[in-house]
Amino acid sequence: MENAQHVENIRHTCAHVLARSMLKLFPGTKLAIGPAIEHGFYQDFEPPRPITDKDLAAIEKEMRKFLAHGHGMTGEKVSVKEARESQKPHPYKLEIIDELEQEGKDITLYTMGDFVDLCRGGHVENTKEINPKAVKLTKVAGAYWRGDEKKPMLTRIYGLAFETPEELKAHMTMLAEAEKRDHRKIGKELDLFVFSELVGSGLPLFTPRGTVILSEFTKLIYELQEPHGYLRVDIPHLAKPELYKRSGHWDKFKDDIFHVRGKHDSEFVLKPMNCPHHAQIYASRPRSYRDLPLRYAEITKMYRDENPGQLQGLSRVRSITIDDAHVFCRPDQIHNEVMNMIDIAEAVYKLYNIKLTPILSVRDPKTPEKYLGTDEGWASAEATLKKVLKDRGIKTFDLDTGGAAFYGPKIDLSGIDAIGRKWQLATFQIDFNQPEGLDLTYVDERGKEVRPVMIHRALLGSMERHLMVLLEHFAGAFPVWLSPVQIALLPLSEKHIDFARTLSQEFKSHGVRVDVDENNETVGNKIRKAVKQKVPYLIVLGDKEVKSGSLPIRSRGSKESHEMVKNDFIKKVLEEIKERK
Amino acid sequence: MENAQHVENIRHTCAHVLARSMLKLFPGTKLAIGPAIEHGFYQDFEPPRPITDKDLAAIEKEMRKFLAHGHGMTGEKVSVKEARESQKPHPYKLEIIDELEQEGKDITLYTMGDFVDLCRGGHVENTKEINPKAVKLTKVAGAYWRGDEKKPMLTRIYGLAFETPEELKAHMTMLAEAEKRDHRKIGKELDLFVFSELVGSGLPLFTPRGTVILSEFTKLIYELQEPHGYLRVDIPHLAKPELYKRSGHWDKFKDDIFHVRGKHDSEFVLKPMNCPHHAQIYASRPRSYRDLPLRYAEITKMYRDENPGQLQGLSRVRSITIDDAHVFCRPDQIHNEVMNMIDIAEAVYKLYNIKLTPILSVRDPKTPEKYLGTDEGWASAEATLKKVLKDRGIKTFDLDTGGAAFYGPKIDLSGIDAIGRKWQLATFQIDFNQPEGLDLTYVDERGKEVRPVMIHRALLGSMERHLMVLLEHFAGAFPVWLSPVQIALLPLSEKHIDFARTLSQEFKSHGVRVDVDENNETVGNKIRKAVKQKVPYLIVLGDKEVKSGSLPIRSRGSKESHEMVKNDFIKKVLEEIKERK
Repeated sequence: MENAQHVENIRHTCAHVLARSMLKLFPGTKLAIGPAIEHGFYQDFEPPRPITDKDLAAIEKEMRKFLAHGHGMTGEKVSVKEARESQKPHPYKLEIIDELEQEGKDITLYTMGDFVDLCRGGHVENTKEINPKAVKLTKVAGAYWRGDEKKPMLTRIYGLAFETPEELKAHMTMLAEAEKRDHRKIGKELDLFVFSELVGSGLPLFTPRGTVILSEFTKLIYELQEPHGYLRVDIPHLAKPELYKRSGHWDKFKDDIFHVRGKHDSEFVLKPMNCPHHAQIYASRPRSYRDLPLRYAEITKMYRDENPGQLQGLSRVRSITIDDAHVFCRPDQIHNEVMNMIDIAEAVYKLYNIKLTPILSVRDPKTPEKYLGTDEGWASAEATLKKVLKDRGIKTFDLDTGGAAFYGPKIDLSGIDAIGRKWQLATFQIDFNQPEGLDLTYVDERGKEVRPVMIHRALLGSMERHLMVLLEHFAGAFPVWLSPVQIALLPLSEKHIDFARTLSQEFKSHGVRVDVDENNETVGNKIRKAVKQKVPYLIVLGDKEVKSGSLPIRSRGSKESHEMVKNDFIKKVLEEIKERK
Repeated sequence: MENAQHVENIRHTCAHVLARSMLKLFPGTKLAIGPAIEHGFYQDFEPPRPITDKDLAAIEKEMRKFLAHGHGMTGEKVSVKEARESQKPHPYKLEIIDELEQEGKDITLYTMGDFVDLCRGGHVENTKEINPKAVKLTKVAGAYWRGDEKKPMLTRIYGLAFETPEELKAHMTMLAEAEKRDHRKIGKELDLFVFSELVGSGLPLFTPRGTVILSEFTKLIYELQEPHGYLRVDIPHLAKPELYKRSGHWDKFKDDIFHVRGKHDSEFVLKPMNCPHHAQIYASRPRSYRDLPLRYAEITKMYRDENPGQLQGLSRVRSITIDDAHVFCRPDQIHNEVMNMIDIAEAVYKLYNIKLTPILSVRDPKTPEKYLGTDEGWASAEATLKKVLKDRGIKTFDLDTGGAAFYGPKIDLSGIDAIGRKWQLATFQIDFNQPEGLDLTYVDERGKEVRPVMIHRALLGSMERHLMVLLEHFAGAFPVWLSPVQIALLPLSEKHIDFARTLSQEFKSHGVRVDVDENNETVGNKIRKAVKQKVPYLIVLGDKEVKSGSLPIRSRGSKESHEMVKNDFIKKVLEEIKERK
C-alpha cells in the first residue's frame, strides 16, 4: 500500500503542477480543485480564454520543464486571513476557505517554486521524484463547479501520471485498444441495442440480436442457480415511497429515485432496487426455521435517475436489468449460502476466462456508530465471510476495512478483462438492517419469533454493464453460445438462396442461430459484413455445395475455409453451444 | 338479435319497476339513473334512510306484485317545464333535464301505473311480459353520482332479470359456482400472488408458485411462436410523452398514463403499451421489402393508472404483464401472418379445452371520417381478414360493424369457460396509423419508400387476467404441466423425511416440481393441505414405501391411492408434462 500512496502523491502533485502551468501560460486563470484520480489527475479552473485540446501540448511542455527542474514542496499552516490574502485571485479557493473557517478546520498553503496553493497535503517532497515522461495530459472537458448544474461551468484538464514512462505507455496502449473495443461502436456493428430520442437517454432498447444475448445470460443464471434451490418471483416496478422509508433506502437513494404520479390516491416511485419487494413476499405469510433458507431470484429492471451527463452507452443507464436474488436465512446458514453463491459466480466467469478476486469489506471498528446491528452480529458475520474465503482456499484477498455497507459486511468479486482493466463483477452482501426495518420474522426451534438475515446477491451486476464488459472483453467476438448469429450462410447468387434456406431450416431445427444473407450483392461484400459482425462461422454456398454433402466452413479469425461433412459440423457446433464455448 | 333486444327491454323495464317500488316503500327516495346491464339491471337513488341487503326481500316482493298485476307502459314527449314539474322531488333527474335542455334534445316521460319516470325508452309494452319469478335483486352497493368521487355517494341496487325462471336459476347456479372459484380465494389457497400495502393496490407480487405458472405461460408462448419467426426484443418501461403523441395514443390514454418525474431533463411516462417502443427498434435502421415481415415479441409489464375502486384481484390491475408482439409487414403478408397468429392461439387454448370463436370488427362505412387510412386500405384489410376466416373454414362469426379501432380492423377470439362465462381472450389488430405517425418505412421492390403495416398481437391478453380466467376455469385444479407443485410427498413421520428428500431429488432431477411436507403434524393434516392446494399427485411415504420399489399414488379428485412402480409413475408424469396435460 506504501507504493500506492506514492503513486497517489505523484498524481496529486501533478494536479498542482498543472495548476501552476496554467497560471504561468494563461495569467488570470482562476483555480478551483485538482485531485488525484485513477491513473492520473485533473484540475478545474476558469481560464481567461477558452482552452482546447490544441493547448495541451504547450501546457504539458511547461509542466515537464517545471517537473524536471526539481522543486521542493512545503506546507505551512496559516490563518484564515493569510489564506484569503494568498488566494485572492481565486474566488473558488476563497469559497473553500470560507467553508474551512466555518467548520473550524486547519488551513494549509503549499509552496512549490513560484507557486502557492491551498491544499490539505499528500504530495511528493520534490518534483524530481516525478518522471516528466511518465506524465501526459489527455483531454479538456467541462465540469460544473461543485458538480452543481446551477453553478458556473469550469474547464477541466485531465492527465495521466505513472511512476515510469513504460507504465504510461502500457496504459496508453490499453486505452487505444479500449477505444477500438468501445462497446458503443461494436454494439452498433453487431446491431445489439439502440437508443431513441423519443424514448429518452439512458434507456436502451435491445434489438432481437441483443435480446438473444440477454436471453442467454438469463438461461445461464437460471440453470446455475436452480440446483441451489433458488425460486423465481415476479414483482411490479412500482411501490409506495413508504416501502423505501421502512427498508432504510430512502435517505440514500432519494435523489436517484424516479417519482411517479397518477390521477388517484398516493404517489408511487419506480423501484431503485428489488429487495424490499422480495421482502414483502417473504412477509406475506408466517415462516418457520424449517422453511429457511428461502431464496427469491428475479431478473428484472430497476430504474435510477442518473445524471444525463454521466449516461454513456450501456455502462451507465437509467433502466438497469439486474439478476437479483435475496436469500432469507438463519445466521448459521450464511456460510453455506455464500459458498454456493461463489460457486455459481465462478461457474459464470470461467466461461469468459475471467479469474475472480475477492474483496472482503468489513466495518471500521473505530466507528461502530456508523453501522446498524450488534457487535456480536458483526463479529460473527465477518468471521463467517472470512471462513468462506478460507474454506475456498483463498489466502490472499483485499480487505477493505470500513468498506462494509451500514447494514452488514460483504464480499465483492472483481476480475481483469482481456486488456487488463479491472471490473467489479459480483457482490454478496449480508444485511441485518432490512429484516428489522420491514419487520421480517421466522419462528425458531424454540417457538420464538426472531429476525432472519438477508443476503443480497448479484452475479452479473447489471445485464447492461455485463454486456458492455463482455463486448469489450471479447471485442465483439463472443463465444459461439453467446453469438447472436452463430452461422452466416452466404449464397453466391440468387439461385443458391433456396438451398441456403433449406440448410438454414435444418440448422434452426437443432436450435442453432443462422442468418441467410439474401441481399443482391457480391459474395465478397457478404463476407465483409459477416466478418464485421464477428459471426463465428461463415459458409459460402454455390453450385458445388448444393450437390455435395459437405460444407466450406470459414471460422472467425481465419481467411481460409475448410471442408466439413455437414453432420460433423452440426455436431461440432451443438457441442460448442452445449458446453458454452 | 330481436330476442336480445327483448331481454334488454325486460331488464330496462325492471329498473323502472325497482325505482317505483323504492318510492312506494320508502317515500322521499330521490331517483337517479337505472339502466339495463349484462344479466340484469341496476337503479341508483338517494334513500330517506340507509338501505341494506336485509331490505331486498321486501323490495323484491313489491316489484313482483307490480309486475304480476300487468301495467302498460306509455311514453310521451313533454316540454322542459312539464318534465321539471313531474320530476321535482328528484334533483338528480332535474340535473339530467337541464342537460337535455342545453343539448336541445327531446324529453320523454314514461307512465307505468302510478309511476312516472324520465326516460329515453326501450321497454316492454306491458309488465305482464315479464315473468316475476325470472327477476331477482342481488345486492346493495354505493356509487358516486355520475361516477365522480367529488359528487354525492348514492345507493345502488343490482338485480338479475331473464326471460324464464330456469334461465335465472342457471345463472344463479353459475354465480354460486363462480364465487366458489373466485381467483382471489383460490389464489391465496395455492399461494400464487400477494398484495402489499407498502407496494400499493393493483400491483400484485407473484410468489414462487405463482411465478412458476407465469414461467410456464412464457415457455409456451416462446415455444409456439418461435417456429413462426418471432424474434424477442427487450425495452425499458419509460418513454417520453412525445413518443405517444406521435403514435397517436396520447389522446386516448393520457388519463390512464402514469407520469414520471426525475430531477433532470424532460418528463417521462410509464409505458401504457409497447407498440411505439417496438416501432423505434424497427425504425433504427433502413428496412427492405426482403426483411419483412419483422416480428418483434416480448413479455413485459406495462402500466395503467386504473381507478382504485375498480381494481380487483388479478382481473383489473395496474401492472399488466402482456405477451405482446408486433408484426411489421407488407400488405400482401397480412393474410399469412394472421393465419399463423390464429394457429398459435388455437394451440394455446386447446390445452385448456376452450374453444375459440372469432369476432371480426370492421369500420362503420357510414362514418368513414372516424377512421384513419384510405378507403382502399380498409376494404383490402377487411377483405383479407374475412378471407382468413373463410380459409380457416369458419362460416359463422360475429361481425361487429363499427367495432374496429380508428387505426384498422381486427379479429378478436373469445371463449367460454367451464362455468359458461364468455371471455375475450386473444386479439389481432391491423394498424395503418402508427407506421404513419412514427414515420416507419421500407424500400419496396421498385426502390420506393413505403409504409409497412403493423399487426398488434396478444394471445393471452394480460398474464394476470389469463391467470385469473384459468384459475376460475380450472377452479385451481390446473393441468399437471401448469401446476406449481406437481407432486406432494407426505412423510408419515420424522423418520421418513430422509427418504422423501431423496425421492424428491430424484423427481427434481427429471424437472418435476415436488414439495416435501416436513411439518411435524399428522399425515391426515398433510393430505388435507395438499388437497386444498389442488396438487395433482399425493404420495404418503411410510415404512413400506422405503422398502418397496413402488409408490402409493393418490390422484387429484380421488380419495383412494393405487400402487405404481416408481419408474412407471415418473414416465407417466413426464409424459403429461411434455404433452401439456
